[in-house]
Amino acid sequence: MRATMMYAPGDVRVENCPDPKILRPTDAIVQVTASCVCGSDLWVYRGIQALDQPKRMGHEFVGVVQEIGSEVRSAAVGDFVIAPFASSDGSCPQCRNGITTSCDRIAWYGADDLDGLPVDGGQGEFVRVPNADGTLVKAPTPDPAQVPGLLTLSDVMATGHHAAISAKAGRGRTVVVVGDGAVGLCGVLAAHRLGAERIIAMSRHASRQELATRFGATDIVIERGDEGVAKVRELLGGVLADSVLECVGTAESMAQALAVTRPGGQLGYVGVPAGGPTLPIGQLFSDNLNVAGGVAPARSYIPELLADFLAGTIDPSPVFDLTLPLEQAAEAYAAMDERRAIKVLLRP
Amino acid sequence: MRATMMYAPGDVRVENCPDPKILRPTDAIVQVTASCVCGSDLWVYRGIQALDQPKRMGHEFVGVVQEIGSEVRSAAVGDFVIAPFASSDGSCPQCRNGITTSCDRIAWYGADDLDGLPVDGGQGEFVRVPNADGTLVKAPTPDPAQVPGLLTLSDVMATGHHAAISAKAGRGRTVVVVGDGAVGLCGVLAAHRLGAERIIAMSRHASRQELATRFGATDIVIERGDEGVAKVRELLGGVLADSVLECVGTAESMAQALAVTRPGGQLGYVGVPAGGPTLPIGQLFSDNLNVAGGVAPARSYIPELLADFLAGTIDPSPVFDLTLPLEQAAEAYAAMDERRAIKVLLRP
Repeated sequence: MRATMMYAPGDVRVENCPDPKILRPTDAIVQVTASCVCGSDLWVYRGIQALDQPKRMGHEFVGVVQEIGSEVRSAAVGDFVIAPFASSDGSCPQCRNGITTSCDRIAWYGADDLDGLPVDGGQGEFVRVPNADGTLVKAPTPDPAQVPGLLTLSDVMATGHHAAISAKAGRGRTVVVVGDGAVGLCGVLAAHRLGAERIIAMSRHASRQELATRFGATDIVIERGDEGVAKVRELLGGVLADSVLECVGTAESMAQALAVTRPGGQLGYVGVPAGGPTLPIGQLFSDNLNVAGGVAPARSYIPELLADFLAGTIDPSPVFDLTLPLEQAAEAYAAMDERRAIKVLLRP
Repeated sequence: MRATMMYAPGDVRVENCPDPKILRPTDAIVQVTASCVCGSDLWVYRGIQALDQPKRMGHEFVGVVQEIGSEVRSAAVGDFVIAPFASSDGSCPQCRNGITTSCDRIAWYGADDLDGLPVDGGQGEFVRVPNADGTLVKAPTPDPAQVPGLLTLSDVMATGHHAAISAKAGRGRTVVVVGDGAVGLCGVLAAHRLGAERIIAMSRHASRQELATRFGATDIVIERGDEGVAKVRELLGGVLADSVLECVGTAESMAQALAVTRPGGQLGYVGVPAGGPTLPIGQLFSDNLNVAGGVAPARSYIPELLADFLAGTIDPSPVFDLTLPLEQAAEAYAAMDERRAIKVLLRP
C-alpha cells in the first residue's frame, strides 16, 4: 500500500509500505476513505519536536472496515467507521472514567503498540487498528459530502470540544478562544454548541475570522499581548472572560490565554505543549485561575458530536479548505506550514 | 493597644501600637475576641518569604464591632463578627463572581490598603476593617466554647473547603488530602461534609492522624513519594484518586498531589506557593490532570459554613490544640514552627 513517511523536518514522502495484517484477535484493518494533516504533525515537520527515526504519519482518518480479528464484536466488515486519534480498549478504569487517551491498552498511530507491534499511520491506504471494539465508532455510510465533517470528529472537532468542556464554556459564560487553527475554530463551534452567547475569537487572518464568525464567534480581537487583554476587557464591560480556550500550545499563547481569564475563571487547554507553555503558579494562585484540559479523549466525545453532525446541528467541515490526493501529502504539509491552508484533507 | 510584630525571621514581639481609628466612612473597628497563627505566617517566620520591614501580623480573627464609619450599614456596634482573612467590598465584579480575594478594593491585614492607609494585623487587640459591609459576617454572640470554631471560618476551614470544592470532592468521589496541618485537616472535614465516602489522609503524625480520622478520613497513608502513590493505588483498587487536595504549598507536596491524581482527576490546591510548587505541563497534558484553587475566597464560603457550624454539622475547632494569651505570641509561633502544636489560638 501507499503511506506517508516523515524522514526529517520538512521531508515528507509517500511510499510503498507493507499492507497491514491482523496481528491480534482484537484488531481491525480499516481502508482509509479520508485522512488529514494535524497541527501537531507540524511540530515534527518544523523540527520543534525531535524525530529519532523516519516515522509513519497521520492519526486522523475515517474509512471502511476491511477485515476483523476473531474477537472483534462491534465492528463488521463493510462498516463505515470514525477512528479517534488514539486507540483505546473502552474497558479499563481510565476508559470508564472517560479518559480514553490514558487507556491501559493505549496505542498511537504511526508507532508501535504496547506489544511492540507496529500500528500504521492514518495518512495511508490502510491502517491496523488495535482495540477495535473500544476504538472505532460506526457511522451510517456517508454521502461523499459528509466525509470531511465526519473526519473532523476523529480529532479537531473532538479536541475543540474538549477545550470548551475543560473551559466550562456554556450558557451564561463569556468565552475567549486563543488560536485560529482548525482546533481553535472547532473550539468556537463547540462553545457555540454548548450555549455560550459571547464568544471572542482572537485572530488576525481574514479567512479564519470569517470562519470563526460562521461558527458562532460574536467578536473578533486582532490585538495581542496587553492590547489584546485591554480589548477583551473592553468588549466584556470591564471584566475578563469566564472561559478561555487555549488551542495553540506555545508559551506565548498560554500566557495570552491566562492574561484574558478573569479571577476565578477557567482555562481549557488542548494545544500540544511543544515550545513549552508554562504555568506561572503565583499568577494562578493569586487570581484563582483554574486550568483543565490535555489530550482530548476524542473517543468519549464522538457519539454525541456525531449525533449532532448527522442531525445538522453542527458542521465543522469548513475547517478543510484544501483537499489533495494522498500522493501530494508533502504539499499538504507545506500548505499548512505556510498557513496557505487551515487544514488539508488527503484522499488515498 | 497591644499587637504582634514580626521584626525578622524568628523574631516575634507583642508591643504597644496606636489604637486604630475610623479612617474612611466604610471602616469598622473590631475588638478582637480571638485570633490565631496561620501556617502561612510561618513562611515569613522561617525566612522563606522575605520581610522587608517589621510587619504587623495576623489575618484571622473574630470579635465585637466597637465603632463604625458613617456609611456602614450591615454591621452595628456590639455585633459579634467573623472577619475573613481578606477585606473585600462585596460589590465589584470579582466579588459578584465569588472571588472576593481578587476584589477591586482588596485590603490585607497588616499592610496598607489601596489608599495607603494602614490596616492592623489580626494578632492584636483591635483592628480597623476596611470595606466593613462587604467583609464582616455577623454571627450570634457565641458561648465561649464556640469561639474557636467560629475563628476557623476566618481562614482554615474556609480554605480547606476551597481545596475540597476546587478538587470537586463530593459524593461518589475518592479523595486524597496532602498535608496534615490545620488546612489539610479542615480539607478532610470539608470533603466529608461534601459527601465523599473515601477520604485518604497522607499523614505521619499520630495526633494529626487521629484528628483526620475524627474529621472523616477513612484511611491514613504514612508513605510518601512513589511508595505513597503505590499505597493510594492499592487502597483504591488499582486506580488513583478522583480528587486531590494540596494543602501545603511546596514543590514536593505539589508533586505528591499530582502523582496520586488519576487521569482526568482534579487537584485542588490552596497551599500558599512558597518554596515554589511547580506545574509540569507535560504531565498535566498527557493525563488530563486538572488544577484549580488558589487564595480561598473565604468571605463567599462563610455563610454556608457558619450555618453548618451553628447547626452542629461540622466542628473544626479541634484544629486548635493550644491556646495562649496574646502576650505569648512568640511562643505560639515557636510551637507551630516546631510542630508542637497544629494551630495556636491567641486571646487578647
